[in-house]
Amino acid sequence: MSGRSYGRLSSGDMTNAPNIFTELPSDLPEELFTKLLQAPGIRIERIVSRGHCSPDGFWYDQDQAEWVLVLKGAARIQFEDRVLELRSGDFVNISAHQKHRVAWTTPDEPTIWLAVHYGEKS
Amino acid sequence: MSGRSYGRLSSGDMTNAPNIFTELPSDLPEELFTKLLQAPGIRIERIVSRGHCSPDGFWYDQDQAEWVLVLKGAARIQFEDRVLELRSGDFVNISAHQKHRVAWTTPDEPTIWLAVHYGEKS
Repeated sequence: MSGRSYGRLSSGDMTNAPNIFTELPSDLPEELFTKLLQAPGIRIERIVSRGHCSPDGFWYDQDQAEWVLVLKGAARIQFEDRVLELRSGDFVNISAHQKHRVAWTTPDEPTIWLAVHYGEKS
Repeated sequence: MSGRSYGRLSSGDMTNAPNIFTELPSDLPEELFTKLLQAPGIRIERIVSRGHCSPDGFWYDQDQAEWVLVLKGAARIQFEDRVLELRSGDFVNISAHQKHRVAWTTPDEPTIWLAVHYGEKS
C-alpha cells in the first residue's frame, strides 16, 4: 500500500471495518443474535446457529417482513406449504406474518445468517 | 434426505432459493447492479465489481442511507476524511449524504457487494 495515494489522503488514513465472520463463540448453547444496524423501519442482524432449530410446533409469526441471506453453513426453513433448502449465498424474503420455522441447521459448522427486518409493523 | 419428514411435508416439498453468488457474467465492462428486493423505504441490491472504481473526482451523495457488506473480493471506499479497507465479511453503514466513492476493487476476482439502501429520502 505504500505510495498509494487517494487525493490528499495517504495510506496512514486507512481504516478497517467490523467483520461479520469474526467473534464467533466456540460454544453456542443458544442461537446468537447480534444487532448490526437499527434505524427507523429497519433492523439488520447477524444470527449464528449450529445445529439449532425451532422447537417442535413453534412458528415465527412476525410483524415485520424479513429478508434473509445465508452467508455460511446450511439451513432449512419450513413454511406451511414447503421446506426451503438454503446454502451459502441463498436468500429468501419472508413476508410479515408468513409463518415459518427453522427446521434444521448444519450441526458440523456454524450457520451464519444475515437478517434484514423491514417495513411497518403490522 | 430420504425419510426425513417435516410434519406433513415430505422431501418432495423441498424447494431451492436464488443464490447471490451465481449468474456472474464472465465479462464485466461495467459494474453490475441487480435488485434483489424493493419495498417501501428499502432496496436491497447486489453489486458486482471487478477492478472498477468511481471516476476521478466523482462522489456518491445519496438521499438514502446505505448499509454495505462485502461478500467476496476486496474493495476500498473513500470518504472525505479516510479510506476504508473492506474484505469479505466487512460491513459499513453510510449515512445519507455522507460523501463517498469506490477507490478500488480487486482486479483479480469479482467483488460482490450487498447493499441495503434504507430510510426516508432526504
